[in-house]
Amino acid sequence: MTRRLVVVGGVAAGMSAASRARRLDPDLEVLVFEAGPHVAYGACGLPYFLAGMVSQPEDLLAYPLDSFRRERNIHVYPRHRVLSLDLEHKLVRVRAGSTDFSIPFGRLVLSTGAEPLRPDLPGADLAGVFTLRTLADGVAIRDYVRAQEPRRAVIVGAGYVGLEMAEAFSRLGMTVTLLEKAGQVLPGWDAHLAGELAKAARAAGVDVRTGAPLQAMEGTTRVRSVTFGGGSAPADLVLLALGVRPAAGLAAAAGLRLGAAGAIEVDLHQQTSHPDVFAAGDCAQTRHLVTGSPAYIPLGTTANKQGRVAGANAAGGNEEFPGVVGTRVVAIFGLEAARTGLTEAEAAAAGMDPVTAEVEQTATAGFYPGPGPVRVHLAVDRRSRRVVGAQMLGAGGVSGRINTIAAALQGHWTIDELSSLDLGYAPPVAPVWDPILIAARAAERVLEGENRADQ
Amino acid sequence: MTRRLVVVGGVAAGMSAASRARRLDPDLEVLVFEAGPHVAYGACGLPYFLAGMVSQPEDLLAYPLDSFRRERNIHVYPRHRVLSLDLEHKLVRVRAGSTDFSIPFGRLVLSTGAEPLRPDLPGADLAGVFTLRTLADGVAIRDYVRAQEPRRAVIVGAGYVGLEMAEAFSRLGMTVTLLEKAGQVLPGWDAHLAGELAKAARAAGVDVRTGAPLQAMEGTTRVRSVTFGGGSAPADLVLLALGVRPAAGLAAAAGLRLGAAGAIEVDLHQQTSHPDVFAAGDCAQTRHLVTGSPAYIPLGTTANKQGRVAGANAAGGNEEFPGVVGTRVVAIFGLEAARTGLTEAEAAAAGMDPVTAEVEQTATAGFYPGPGPVRVHLAVDRRSRRVVGAQMLGAGGVSGRINTIAAALQGHWTIDELSSLDLGYAPPVAPVWDPILIAARAAERVLEGENRADQ
Repeated sequence: MTRRLVVVGGVAAGMSAASRARRLDPDLEVLVFEAGPHVAYGACGLPYFLAGMVSQPEDLLAYPLDSFRRERNIHVYPRHRVLSLDLEHKLVRVRAGSTDFSIPFGRLVLSTGAEPLRPDLPGADLAGVFTLRTLADGVAIRDYVRAQEPRRAVIVGAGYVGLEMAEAFSRLGMTVTLLEKAGQVLPGWDAHLAGELAKAARAAGVDVRTGAPLQAMEGTTRVRSVTFGGGSAPADLVLLALGVRPAAGLAAAAGLRLGAAGAIEVDLHQQTSHPDVFAAGDCAQTRHLVTGSPAYIPLGTTANKQGRVAGANAAGGNEEFPGVVGTRVVAIFGLEAARTGLTEAEAAAAGMDPVTAEVEQTATAGFYPGPGPVRVHLAVDRRSRRVVGAQMLGAGGVSGRINTIAAALQGHWTIDELSSLDLGYAPPVAPVWDPILIAARAAERVLEGENRADQ
Repeated sequence: MTRRLVVVGGVAAGMSAASRARRLDPDLEVLVFEAGPHVAYGACGLPYFLAGMVSQPEDLLAYPLDSFRRERNIHVYPRHRVLSLDLEHKLVRVRAGSTDFSIPFGRLVLSTGAEPLRPDLPGADLAGVFTLRTLADGVAIRDYVRAQEPRRAVIVGAGYVGLEMAEAFSRLGMTVTLLEKAGQVLPGWDAHLAGELAKAARAAGVDVRTGAPLQAMEGTTRVRSVTFGGGSAPADLVLLALGVRPAAGLAAAAGLRLGAAGAIEVDLHQQTSHPDVFAAGDCAQTRHLVTGSPAYIPLGTTANKQGRVAGANAAGGNEEFPGVVGTRVVAIFGLEAARTGLTEAEAAAAGMDPVTAEVEQTATAGFYPGPGPVRVHLAVDRRSRRVVGAQMLGAGGVSGRINTIAAALQGHWTIDELSSLDLGYAPPVAPVWDPILIAARAAERVLEGENRADQ
């Protein structure tokens, strides 16, 4: 049997897997097939590339392609699309240009990522209508912007990418309309925090339209306008930022089991339903450490960690990726918004009995000139007193604090444990009662008040 | 028996205790005796007050004195010094101006704070020689600065207060000499990080002298110069910032047991060796959650938390303060320095087998213009793989990260748990592999390499 490891997909999870396998087993043959032209890049940097803050697409590469071949002895093949998997005979079928070939594998890591959702609506194929997922997508948008000099951009979907791109296009001087079919930006977040973010976007000149589902894109060859529930807008460029679904087609066709949200089912070893096949990154499910259930939360941070574990185990190791708490940060329009764990609605849907304490406290000592208040929403389960999630918003001092709550979630802490946490204090960086502690104490008082009312 | 609660000392711990007791028992009579003229202030703000960033001393008060009387029904008596405790008859002896009186108590909370160390050296009583502990000390220094317009300041002791005051006096335009008898600023910290901080202080014009013990202060009525091992310096103002010791004299005279570093011995309920007497804040010991042993780490954050627990239990409650991990942050000369848990030397002294991984990683995505690198020293116990402490230094992005490691310490995490932590990522606030994760992985590699070498 061949000892060859084949990795399908070479962005984040795939290159992490290949690198880790190589490190643990210097004799293993490691091949990576990537359908696109680039490998090992950080897709989360694309809005900054498009805003002109990163000059070369190559600056988003974690490592140049050559370094894998020369320094790590990893055979990386861009523009090689894997067409199918034959798990019985342990072969992958690959297309490179006009040539197809099959190659045997001993172990396989699937890191095929996610695909952007595209609506089945008139005009979706017009020139000037884009999605933004890969570095090639980013280069295509940049080239279009350079060649066509669009003045009016419509972004459809006000999630992280939609919001970041609204800021990026604004920086380029475009007039930006941001459409969101839900009643708020960042659907799923607490409405009040999302509303503050929308306010900041509007203050920066973005025409934010919520409750505004996309209906059609119009134009002859190039897009010229967009129609949505509630109106229409001229558009020289349309970005569809409607979210993603796992690119699990190859896995499904090969008979591998799918799990949460149609992502590839894996266990804590990142092993799929076939013992020689591992999956990692945006194509794979993960485990939510607050609910204990499978979840699909595609993020680059998770992809890298899962990739390392998949690569280690594909090389004969025995490592586990315990799961995620779903920590996310977005920094736009002068604000940092972050969440970790479950919202109150998600906790209720998971069978918990949640309540949310909402506080506002300065990020620094009150007398010290700083970024002003941090708003904290802390969701707690009444029965167990466990912290189940948090959301934060402020001009600064947010990301470090959400990470601290992420650690509390990972440790299954109660609010009482959180309220005794020994946090650093110095007037330029925090008040003596940190916003985290204020929120934990507020949650204690909420439960205290409720218990008293029960008596 | 009287149900009166008497609190001795009304700065941080004392006012927290009084407020919490009042909240839990609306019928309890609550009296606070404070020797100084101010109550409920944040002493950590004093360097900023002296730097002119806080205009009124009143701005450092958490609440005005009247609010305790009017809104909380707490009887607060400033300028009332408690002279002695009679635990047998449950009386406190109090001096107010020229009048002494005794008052019975049911329960007692001791929150007498800490006293600045003063060297027994020639000239220590000269005018212009100060310590900085209380708000009254701060006002005295400010008044001296206004009246005498000192041009040359000598600060003795390069701990947190010494460094913060070096920056404050520099801001006021004074020429500052900073003397430290140890071989580095921030004694106890890893020497390399301390050296970076000293370099920043020197770049800001401070004459930092390490290995320079104070020998004498000279002058006729007012201080004019300072002699130290290695030289002398002219001085219009001297600040002795040599650290503190617990103000446990009252407790000791009354027969209460003392513990770590001569601080009042308390259990997790903040109860002293007398069942009706509680202690909290800088006069009391605490428990170090990494070693499990009693420790003396006087900080405002801990004082407030201990005060709440002492107040709750003095009012008949049953709460615990689990302990601290010793998280400290100082932000000076454009740098944030922070530590939590044990240094490698402290861990070795506690019987552990520690090793330190040292890494440097940008605070934000590499391509994003941010505060630059964060240096992380992560100390790990080889036997248990547990994280035992961390130190960090950087121009930004430090305090949130030290808090996250503080949570990991409080949860007794291994480096493997830390390296799987789900931290937020967005290019403006963090790289995809956060400095914390880079440090955890570096520690894993250190142990891996050592194990390999053992074979």
